[in-house]
Amino acid sequence: MYSFTNDYSEGAHPRILQALLETNLQQVAGYGEDPFCREAAELIKAKMGRSDVDIHFIPGGTQTNLIAISAFLRPHEAAVSPQTGHIGVHEAGAIEATGHKVIAVPGQDGKLRPEDVQAVLDFHVDEHMVKPRLVYISNTTELGSIYTKRELMELSSFCRQHNLLLYVDGARLGSALTSEGNDLTLADLASMVDAFYIGGTKNGALIGEALVICSEQLQTDFRFHIKQKGALLAKGRLLGLQFRELFRDDLFFRLAEHANSMANRIQRALRSLGCRFLVDSPSNQIFPILPNWIIAELQKDYAFYIWQQADEEHSVVRLVTSWACPEEVVDRFIHRCTELFQSR
Amino acid sequence: MYSFTNDYSEGAHPRILQALLETNLQQVAGYGEDPFCREAAELIKAKMGRSDVDIHFIPGGTQTNLIAISAFLRPHEAAVSPQTGHIGVHEAGAIEATGHKVIAVPGQDGKLRPEDVQAVLDFHVDEHMVKPRLVYISNTTELGSIYTKRELMELSSFCRQHNLLLYVDGARLGSALTSEGNDLTLADLASMVDAFYIGGTKNGALIGEALVICSEQLQTDFRFHIKQKGALLAKGRLLGLQFRELFRDDLFFRLAEHANSMANRIQRALRSLGCRFLVDSPSNQIFPILPNWIIAELQKDYAFYIWQQADEEHSVVRLVTSWACPEEVVDRFIHRCTELFQSR
Amino acid sequence: MYSFTNDYSEGAHPRILQALLETNLQQVAGYGEDPFCREAAELIKAKMGRSDVDIHFIPGGTQTNLIAISAFLRPHEAAVSPQTGHIGVHEAGAIEATGHKVIAVPGQDGKLRPEDVQAVLDFHVDEHMVKPRLVYISNTTELGSIYTKRELMELSSFCRQHNLLLYVDGARLGSALTSEGNDLTLADLASMVDAFYIGGTKNGALIGEALVICSEQLQTDFRFHIKQKGALLAKGRLLGLQFRELFRDDLFFRLAEHANSMANRIQRALRSLGCRFLVDSPSNQIFPILPNWIIAELQKDYAFYIWQQADEEHSVVRLVTSWACPEEVVDRFIHRCTELFQSR
Amino acid sequence: MYSFTNDYSEGAHPRILQALLETNLQQVAGYGEDPFCREAAELIKAKMGRSDVDIHFIPGGTQTNLIAISAFLRPHEAAVSPQTGHIGVHEAGAIEATGHKVIAVPGQDGKLRPEDVQAVLDFHVDEHMVKPRLVYISNTTELGSIYTKRELMELSSFCRQHNLLLYVDGARLGSALTSEGNDLTLADLASMVDAFYIGGTKNGALIGEALVICSEQLQTDFRFHIKQKGALLAKGRLLGLQFRELFRDDLFFRLAEHANSMANRIQRALRSLGCRFLVDSPSNQIFPILPNWIIAELQKDYAFYIWQQADEEHSVVRLVTSWACPEEVVDRFIHRCTELFQSR
Repeated sequence: MYSFTNDYSEGAHPRILQALLETNLQQVAGYGEDPFCREAAELIKAKMGRSDVDIHFIPGGTQTNLIAISAFLRPHEAAVSPQTGHIGVHEAGAIEATGHKVIAVPGQDGKLRPEDVQAVLDFHVDEHMVKPRLVYISNTTELGSIYTKRELMELSSFCRQHNLLLYVDGARLGSALTSEGNDLTLADLASMVDAFYIGGTKNGALIGEALVICSEQLQTDFRFHIKQKGALLAKGRLLGLQFRELFRDDLFFRLAEHANSMANRIQRALRSLGCRFLVDSPSNQIFPILPNWIIAELQKDYAFYIWQQADEEHSVVRLVTSWACPEEVVDRFIHRCTELFQSR
Repeated sequence: MYSFTNDYSEGAHPRILQALLETNLQQVAGYGEDPFCREAAELIKAKMGRSDVDIHFIPGGTQTNLIAISAFLRPHEAAVSPQTGHIGVHEAGAIEATGHKVIAVPGQDGKLRPEDVQAVLDFHVDEHMVKPRLVYISNTTELGSIYTKRELMELSSFCRQHNLLLYVDGARLGSALTSEGNDLTLADLASMVDAFYIGGTKNGALIGEALVICSEQLQTDFRFHIKQKGALLAKGRLLGLQFRELFRDDLFFRLAEHANSMANRIQRALRSLGCRFLVDSPSNQIFPILPNWIIAELQKDYAFYIWQQADEEHSVVRLVTSWACPEEVVDRFIHRCTELFQSR
Repeated sequence: MYSFTNDYSEGAHPRILQALLETNLQQVAGYGEDPFCREAAELIKAKMGRSDVDIHFIPGGTQTNLIAISAFLRPHEAAVSPQTGHIGVHEAGAIEATGHKVIAVPGQDGKLRPEDVQAVLDFHVDEHMVKPRLVYISNTTELGSIYTKRELMELSSFCRQHNLLLYVDGARLGSALTSEGNDLTLADLASMVDAFYIGGTKNGALIGEALVICSEQLQTDFRFHIKQKGALLAKGRLLGLQFRELFRDDLFFRLAEHANSMANRIQRALRSLGCRFLVDSPSNQIFPILPNWIIAELQKDYAFYIWQQADEEHSVVRLVTSWACPEEVVDRFIHRCTELFQSR
Repeated sequence: MYSFTNDYSEGAHPRILQALLETNLQQVAGYGEDPFCREAAELIKAKMGRSDVDIHFIPGGTQTNLIAISAFLRPHEAAVSPQTGHIGVHEAGAIEATGHKVIAVPGQDGKLRPEDVQAVLDFHVDEHMVKPRLVYISNTTELGSIYTKRELMELSSFCRQHNLLLYVDGARLGSALTSEGNDLTLADLASMVDAFYIGGTKNGALIGEALVICSEQLQTDFRFHIKQKGALLAKGRLLGLQFRELFRDDLFFRLAEHANSMANRIQRALRSLGCRFLVDSPSNQIFPILPNWIIAELQKDYAFYIWQQADEEHSVVRLVTSWACPEEVVDRFIHRCTELFQSR
């Protein structure tokens, strides 16, 4: 049984474990003030050519979102999110638990455009309603789609024009930045948004996300918020060390590229078999629409998530590939799909 | 330079890293539903002879406290804590951020007695004030002291009699349960309190605390709270695996014993040199009162925390030993102290 | 200029002011423990033939909603509301500010049916999402529609079957219970829902809503929540006295009847002129669809709210009548409408 | 039986009721945007010679405190309060319910001095602790004492020097500003603090407090916070009208003066009988220390609050006089006290 359920089924890239072993008995300061965190932050800043951003390492994605958003907003302000957004659906009300409404808007393929946000502004006109203040998007989105440089720039300009903060959930940012068709860089991101995070957990780390705060006015006192929400790890070294390893060379990007290429290979193969897809995804999550009987056959050897019903005889499934996904598994999976499609 | 600043300056016990390596590419379910978490929970339950408790693995201590306390209380209810309690002082208002007041009471040596709590109940008489509902203590306390079985039983009976929940912060529970003079067991704890946590981070794990919920009515829906506060790690395996390793045999207790014995050795030696202590601590944190000039000399080779001024010429320092503290370092430290004391 | 903008443009029914005058210098206990509050509660209980409900008087509607909902829910639980619901749109994020998500569902004419709630339950399947726990509806709804006894009974049964609390926002409950076609009584309500409030502000009081808590398990410690949210007025007498006056005889219902009949009269007249309506409302809010030029003419003498655009040449307006609305004003308004319609 | 229990046992000053009657059927805008609120705000601004402050009318004191403090602070910031402060003791955790810790410091006679706040700053040194940001005081204090102009100026300078906000709970501000020995004016207050409120409820209004926000940066979006916390009354006229009446001439101050002079008269009389006091209070709350048998005798005809035990045979009682307290009652009370003292 091989699982395409998600990209966090395995542990960490071996180089990360190696780094943990090598530094294990070194005594270092706690709470993210160790040399590994510092080095990691420097490496990431260098990668985006910016020394004026703040970087904090936080154990998980939901936590990063809730800390950032609650630190950035005043009590009456709300976040705007696409309807599929992680903060609105799959965080068990984490943002609301910090006191803020998440305004969900339909969007398109998991993405937000200026006109989507404009509609929210048009509706929220006075103090009887919350004040939309932060736009939350994810890249890649929950549907595997990505923002082009132009799309993000348009959204960014709109936000600045309307005094809205722009925040990017980058749980799968590695995958986005190495996707076919991507023309965004870390440096672009840093110049266009107020804050974003670089996901480690879903790209080869054991645990950890790197929150990048670009806007100076959002940087003040940020460590208080990390501490208050319980995310300031005593052994912060665990987070710093992993990001140091991922950004010491381009390991972070290579791992994401591998995951993407595995998904692309499956997508191309299925397409050539006549299969359609829910959304056009260049990243490591793909959403083929398969006949139910083929799904049933595949489930004998592969685990994956059934996303939604398509029609009476078809369903959309989600296949996720990871940094650790072996090529031979992918080839075997494609071979099996081919057999099944051809036996119809 | 050797650091006695805390017990989280090093990484993890080598057996833990080894276990991470060995299981690294095994694909397992996310969010704490993997076999490692299950095994770890079973091992801990077996150690306390209870199958009716719930065990959840959570990245850090502040987080465990805030999730548990906010899940257990209704909005108008408050926690009672000794003035030195971690939740009242060193968690950046984490409990208040979930909406609850922490009522601080002086206590004695970092501990609470029934009469301390009774005074709180006497003061809080109507709905114009918060309703005290949960008693928070730590074992070992922030001052290194421990609760005897009898002391805990008295507090437990008092709480049950007054419909108060009793919660134990066990960031250093390993140290407490292996201290000289301790007569408490995990089984005792589980029978006397409503919930407690077993600290991993300060006893040889890279990260992680095991929250044990003993009272059935507090168990319902608990995973929602972990998720909502951002503590449900995608790779929950990281937590489960470490606790499996710590509780597979008695590694957890052996590590704590080692830390305690290193601190005891220093304490005995200093005492024989005529040194007094802020508090009588049998655990891995000790608080000698040293002449300021000796402190200055020691700081050339050793790092530690200056706790408070004692008088014009003396200060209280905190020395913390860890599972990783080498005997030869302790002997060298004692030797140096002896030299300094005798040179007066 | 006469205003049909809302039903809180005037002060209070003269009998209420009279009662304030007569009791003004009587010294009474503070914080709702005065004889007026007690009498008012007894009168309301008598009206519904129930002695086992708890009644609390609270200054405003948003406040009543936020206190009740935050007191009833645990942190991970959410409220389900129709998309037009006051808590989801016009309370500036009051519910979220207490930590809870409001799940908006489309509904029909401002109302929720069991199938609407079922869809929410189907979607929320695990601890990665909030747990739907309370169903919020209003009667009359924000669109002036009402629940029949049968509709409410079906929703109530559904909620009990699925362990959901049912809560009714009764800001305009007087209007609902005296509407043409209504077959619900206060006693019915109390037997079908867990809590509801009887709106005073929009039915002749200066200020004040009476929250009725029907379910015993929701009654415990409720005054703590009122106090904590700042709604326990020192001079609670102000609230008690008004509700005593409104329920001493049937003044409460008579005032609502008057408001309804004024709106009905306008509705019938407009209908006979060929005017269509956004929704079929038997209550004191009506939503005619008028030609824009007629709206412009009417606005010279009457104030009202333009609800939404209907098409290029028509808009929906909201007309609200109150307990204080004079018949002659209504007749004059109808007369003017008739002139305008006939001049086309 | 006459009650000296508090200053909110009666209704409102007759002129206020008269104003309600006279304006009752006037249709005005809701939510504090009516002409009465505007006039009242203008009158108060004129009284302090400031046009750059913002004034909001809010139903109650706890509510005003919680709205202001939660609007002014970011999540990690805390309020510093004297141990006797209303927000720390008698608001059922209202401030904590908005997410903020209240740091209680002993103070002196219910007041805070710069050195009291300095001690808090010295203790709170890093992000593991909350950040003290707002200093909360009350005038008069809970013990009836008042701040002199010099005392308040010293505290104000200290706060500005340390980037702390200064907030004054003025539930009994009328009494403070008309106390013997007072040298503060409304204008002084407005120039020294960031925000304060002028209490109506305890000085002749039925309900209502006027929050004055002096610092421009705290004024932005404030109505959102009032709405979100449920304090934006639909019939805001009720609040505006009362403050218009109180500040149309000096009624507000005359009512407070009367209350003070009644308490002073009792205090002088008791003192001349040899009675001691817990605190030296020039305001409408006094705290005589009486023999228990005299207390028992007085309780036959008068209600008041027993504050605390003094010794085995004496207790401190609290006597509060109000705007409505008749001179003859005070004279009779003094007469009775004299009889009792002389019968010893």
